[in-house]
Amino acid sequence: MRVIVAGVPGAGKTSIMREVANRTNHDIVNYGTLMLELAKSRNLTNDRDSIRKLPIEIQKELQKEAARKIGEMDDVIVDTHLTIKTPAGYFPGLPEWVLKEINPNLIVVVEAVPHEIMRRRRLDNTRKRDFETQGDIKEHLDANKYAAFACSILTGAPVMILTNRDGMLEQAVERFMEAFK
Amino acid sequence: MRVIVAGVPGAGKTSIMREVANRTNHDIVNYGTLMLELAKSRNLTNDRDSIRKLPIEIQKELQKEAARKIGEMDDVIVDTHLTIKTPAGYFPGLPEWVLKEINPNLIVVVEAVPHEIMRRRRLDNTRKRDFETQGDIKEHLDANKYAAFACSILTGAPVMILTNRDGMLEQAVERFMEAFK
Amino acid sequence: MRVIVAGVPGAGKTSIMREVANRTNHDIVNYGTLMLELAKSRNLTNDRDSIRKLPIEIQKELQKEAARKIGEMDDVIVDTHLTIKTPAGYFPGLPEWVLKEINPNLIVVVEAVPHEIMRRRRLDNTRKRDFETQGDIKEHLDANKYAAFACSILTGAPVMILTNRDGMLEQAVERFMEAFK
Repeated sequence: MRVIVAGVPGAGKTSIMREVANRTNHDIVNYGTLMLELAKSRNLTNDRDSIRKLPIEIQKELQKEAARKIGEMDDVIVDTHLTIKTPAGYFPGLPEWVLKEINPNLIVVVEAVPHEIMRRRRLDNTRKRDFETQGDIKEHLDANKYAAFACSILTGAPVMILTNRDGMLEQAVERFMEAFK
Repeated sequence: MRVIVAGVPGAGKTSIMREVANRTNHDIVNYGTLMLELAKSRNLTNDRDSIRKLPIEIQKELQKEAARKIGEMDDVIVDTHLTIKTPAGYFPGLPEWVLKEINPNLIVVVEAVPHEIMRRRRLDNTRKRDFETQGDIKEHLDANKYAAFACSILTGAPVMILTNRDGMLEQAVERFMEAFK
Repeated sequence: MRVIVAGVPGAGKTSIMREVANRTNHDIVNYGTLMLELAKSRNLTNDRDSIRKLPIEIQKELQKEAARKIGEMDDVIVDTHLTIKTPAGYFPGLPEWVLKEINPNLIVVVEAVPHEIMRRRRLDNTRKRDFETQGDIKEHLDANKYAAFACSILTGAPVMILTNRDGMLEQAVERFMEAFK
């Protein structure tokens, strides 16, 4: 299986992903980290944020190259984003040329209700995040779903919308496990 | 016209489709049945459920072949799904390679309000269906719409969102008929 | 920058677009007008409404040709639609073959709350518009967003959802300007 897992910050995809990777003997690959490693190895840049400042054609090459590597892996969970929220709008994390190289068997969208996401972000002091209202979070959650179904049509991969409520991690993991049966 | 008609179970697409096919002299082709016939004629399988257990490349070949046949038909209403709900997620009924072979002139999404769909399912004893809450049904209705608009962009076909309220079949049929003017 | 700006009638995209074009030194190109000019120069038709009555292959050629011209322009804001509401359904304003020729850097969806859109339409006597309920308008707003994210995945362009509330044009313009930083 090559599974893509995405979700807005605070949806809790990391805990779910780790648990499922563990139970199913899958590796977790972070797409952004893989791109950064490729960029470093070619002396293009050394930090994540400046990738976006590279010429667009070089960014695309890095994206494709990273995606191609993942497409060659088996039993892997890809930690990435369907949309990345920036002041300039929602950037697609899985444009067609990335998606078709990865060629996933499943796309999992991890969700939670906006007020739970808000609370989790507030409690997480390890990352600096811009404040978002429940309405902002709702918009981002919706954007991810719109994107997920477009990705599904381009690849044939099913979309699992996985709700990760407070205190119900085990239920979410068990639902995810259905896809491996 | 080559018209795709889709809708969640209980939305009532069958009654609408039959009436419109009748008034417009179109044939109805069930995409799943066509795939099954192809699978049978090649001695691949004899029942619908085991198609999904065939190797993925063979499934894709069957999908494409069925879609190609439909793409050669005129005046046909294609009875199919935008998304198929399974424990492993929503499978796309119209991935790009199917869609571009069918090359539809119109995509009709038949809808109803969740509580009406729930009631219709409860009254229909002919099929065994998993129980779904109104929230589940809402999610499936939404998934269909997200998928429909992605299909529209890939084909240029318009999307008609057709509400089929209890006791208002004739109104739904008449709205559908607008597309044949 | 090649920026696509879309929005339902009454969302107020024209005022925003003009102001941003002005501040950023971009030209505004109306996609429909460009298609009409091409149709006229080939003696195919003289009015906008009859373009849709031309054979579908000729329409596609016109669409592609107009899109190709825009794809060659720099610093342009493209005034167009994500979906065009007709009695036969929502037509895609940016099918794949148009989208990939335009190859935008940004897709802006201008929105407002349904009741504000309703009021603006009522106050605008210059155009004849079919009456739509708030529910109808909501459906159209949603359709545009579904389409926008599919377009984003096909092109890699980010989607900016831009709310244009009554009396808050300057705020909307300033948010739009973020994309030019």
